[in-house]
Amino acid sequence: MKNFNDYIGLFADHYEFTMAQGYFLDGRESCPACFDYFFRKNPFDSGYTIFAGLYDLIEMITQFKFNDDSIDHLKKTGFRDEFLDYLKKFSFKGNIVAPKEGEIVFCNEPIVRVEGNIIETQLIESLLLNMLNFQSLIATKASRLRQSAGHRDLVDFGLRRAQGLSAIHASKAAIIGGVNSTSNVYSSYAFGVSSSGTQAHSWIQSYPDELTAFRKFAKAFPQKCVLLVDTKNTLNSGVPNAIIVAKEMEERGEKLYAIRLDSGDLSYLSKKARNVLDEANLNYVKIIASNQLNERLIKSLIEQGAPINAFGVGTNLITGQCDGALDGVYKLSMIDNKPTLKLTENVDKVSLPGVKKIYRYYNGDGKFYADGILLDEEENIQKICHPIHSNKSSKVSELEKEELIEKVMEKGEIKIENKSIKKISDYVRFRLTLLPDEHKRFENPHLYKIGISTKLFDLRIKLIEEFHQR
Amino acid sequence: MKNFNDYIGLFADHYEFTMAQGYFLDGRESCPACFDYFFRKNPFDSGYTIFAGLYDLIEMITQFKFNDDSIDHLKKTGFRDEFLDYLKKFSFKGNIVAPKEGEIVFCNEPIVRVEGNIIETQLIESLLLNMLNFQSLIATKASRLRQSAGHRDLVDFGLRRAQGLSAIHASKAAIIGGVNSTSNVYSSYAFGVSSSGTQAHSWIQSYPDELTAFRKFAKAFPQKCVLLVDTKNTLNSGVPNAIIVAKEMEERGEKLYAIRLDSGDLSYLSKKARNVLDEANLNYVKIIASNQLNERLIKSLIEQGAPINAFGVGTNLITGQCDGALDGVYKLSMIDNKPTLKLTENVDKVSLPGVKKIYRYYNGDGKFYADGILLDEEENIQKICHPIHSNKSSKVSELEKEELIEKVMEKGEIKIENKSIKKISDYVRFRLTLLPDEHKRFENPHLYKIGISTKLFDLRIKLIEEFHQR
Repeated sequence: MKNFNDYIGLFADHYEFTMAQGYFLDGRESCPACFDYFFRKNPFDSGYTIFAGLYDLIEMITQFKFNDDSIDHLKKTGFRDEFLDYLKKFSFKGNIVAPKEGEIVFCNEPIVRVEGNIIETQLIESLLLNMLNFQSLIATKASRLRQSAGHRDLVDFGLRRAQGLSAIHASKAAIIGGVNSTSNVYSSYAFGVSSSGTQAHSWIQSYPDELTAFRKFAKAFPQKCVLLVDTKNTLNSGVPNAIIVAKEMEERGEKLYAIRLDSGDLSYLSKKARNVLDEANLNYVKIIASNQLNERLIKSLIEQGAPINAFGVGTNLITGQCDGALDGVYKLSMIDNKPTLKLTENVDKVSLPGVKKIYRYYNGDGKFYADGILLDEEENIQKICHPIHSNKSSKVSELEKEELIEKVMEKGEIKIENKSIKKISDYVRFRLTLLPDEHKRFENPHLYKIGISTKLFDLRIKLIEEFHQR
Repeated sequence: MKNFNDYIGLFADHYEFTMAQGYFLDGRESCPACFDYFFRKNPFDSGYTIFAGLYDLIEMITQFKFNDDSIDHLKKTGFRDEFLDYLKKFSFKGNIVAPKEGEIVFCNEPIVRVEGNIIETQLIESLLLNMLNFQSLIATKASRLRQSAGHRDLVDFGLRRAQGLSAIHASKAAIIGGVNSTSNVYSSYAFGVSSSGTQAHSWIQSYPDELTAFRKFAKAFPQKCVLLVDTKNTLNSGVPNAIIVAKEMEERGEKLYAIRLDSGDLSYLSKKARNVLDEANLNYVKIIASNQLNERLIKSLIEQGAPINAFGVGTNLITGQCDGALDGVYKLSMIDNKPTLKLTENVDKVSLPGVKKIYRYYNGDGKFYADGILLDEEENIQKICHPIHSNKSSKVSELEKEELIEKVMEKGEIKIENKSIKKISDYVRFRLTLLPDEHKRFENPHLYKIGISTKLFDLRIKLIEEFHQR
């Protein structure tokens, strides 16, 4: 495989180059443009989305360039020499405005704004969508798992079921969203997150019997020793053998950390195992459970009183099931310093024109009340109104507010620090405490209010009318 | 981001290292072992699976090593110096036996065999599962799309909705499975596959009006010019403007290649657009459709007589919806030259012991009849029997047969050529002609027969009984 970092400029849809060449040949390479990123639906029928992938994205944008191999490839693909000469010297010199990584965001708000010339803002489209859509999807999934698991440990077990190299960023986004650690050693290395793991069934099979396998493992890993008890029979073989080894460890002044259940009815088996462990005075030995878990199964296990201390989650976390993708899009909002919008026959899908900012308004109790989308020059507005029905509005003039998006890249240079994953996941946890519970529930979460300013509403109407007059 | 190629050894679950160190400390680093890869369910309720990801996997295995940074990281994670000294010199020196890339395979057959010492065979587990599970998932999805699309063009539009860097291999696997080209320029470069693309709505918006935008595009791309007609109103604006431009192109001796529909009712709009184009004597202008398509929607559009010449497929292809992951597993079948199996309380999930091979038996009409799993030393067997119920059996002694798996890696060296993607996708197409139709249908496909030899059946029974006697 080629070294991906050297070819990030090619990580783009073919049509980005088609359009870029078209603009170039039309002499528009300096034409200013502004694009908005937003998505139309929170994933998993969730009431909110965790914004993630930002730093990876802007770091990749600084590497979004074209080496000789890339230029050769584009030439063979049919692009023209004069355009390729331009690409040889290309680097992104625009601005990007975005929420903090880990921010709680909602569908239909233009959270990321990209400003620059039409070529640079267009070329990075696919990369931006790819990184933000995916990491936000996984961080949101992880935050839902965290909601279900409460204070219990959550471990990402997904590498083997991940969509190829997606695992690199997925394991990181999982920790941003609220998972404690990952089995993925590469991501642990690359992003400084904690990795953990125990043994597979093959370890047990590789010894003449389960008890020998457990003894060998406890000798090799006296600290945080976890024994997988379901290889043969959980209650008749695995748990009794684990108890023997735990007792032997006690004699050596050590403590068995946990047993792991990986099949069968996790509620039934965890209760039975807990009883037997407690009867053997091993109440300190924890129970870890895994096997096709998701946020709803974990919630159900806890409601059933299953005494599980930690959950390992694989496929459903790492691939963001049952959604697979956040539907983020990238729409032109300004061209040549004039506001524009994407019309469509579906009025709900008409985009918001102009350079905009977002205020987050707070309730009297200090919790999130609504987000307002304003034109960038606006500050104190009286009310926000429904994006389609202007007669539906909410007064916001007396509410506490904060700006939700900030400049993260200016003239192609990164303006924010590369925060530790711990700092970002702490931010997620903190911000979720400010989101009212009704937006967090799994079943029909209450729709968070997103409104637009009257000026923005009027601008949109004016542009639609202008179009119909043409 | 770090250069991934330099750290492939870390692309592994933490427990692979835990077990490897355990084996090492127990003095078992030379203990021979054999693992089988198989999956338990064909994805998408499909009757078959396309095997993909093989060459990427074995190439990565040759790079599965540990540089100083990796060793430092593992040291900080808590692994011991003597084991890390071993890892510094590590490279995979085992054998891998597998089907041809692009082969049609089925659930519950041990298609890949990994032989070597217990440490090397264990360490590559996560990488193997990650690569084979994902690429096979996407290639299978693509082959289903191909079945629906018939001779029509299929383009992968998934990069923006792909799961991060998964796009690198997904776009390639999509072409293996039957898609014609991809929008993903990086994968086009890395794997020598063809890329294609046209324009986004932003191109149209960036000009004062749609007609100007179309004219500019046709000037810049007279060859294979595709015009996106749904930015404002497909039938009232997009198609009429495309016709004006097509006529202007004709005057210049050029031909408009196609229009693209990306929203609305694709059946209705494609019929209306086709009529208008034909009335304007533009019957050579093709219609390309996209927008949340999958194999069932494409089948339905064709059944409705929608005159669509090419389909662009994004999310559902690139993320393998609605499955997200193939459930492949990696189970120990030999240890220290003795056969072993993974017991479980669920009899269906007891694995197959020993070193095995697979014969594919042919019907009299030259089509696939059944696959037989035999012990490696067996050749001509009378019958294959059901893996659980030995009284259910099929006579195979008089059938034509072929070996399904071959050595692809020997003592750590690659033994097969790196075939072009075209060659692999041709192989997929050819092999699908040999698969009876009843296994290809979407609704309740007929279960393909997988049997095991009597010797293998008896070996399994013997090992289960031996365990229960202990």
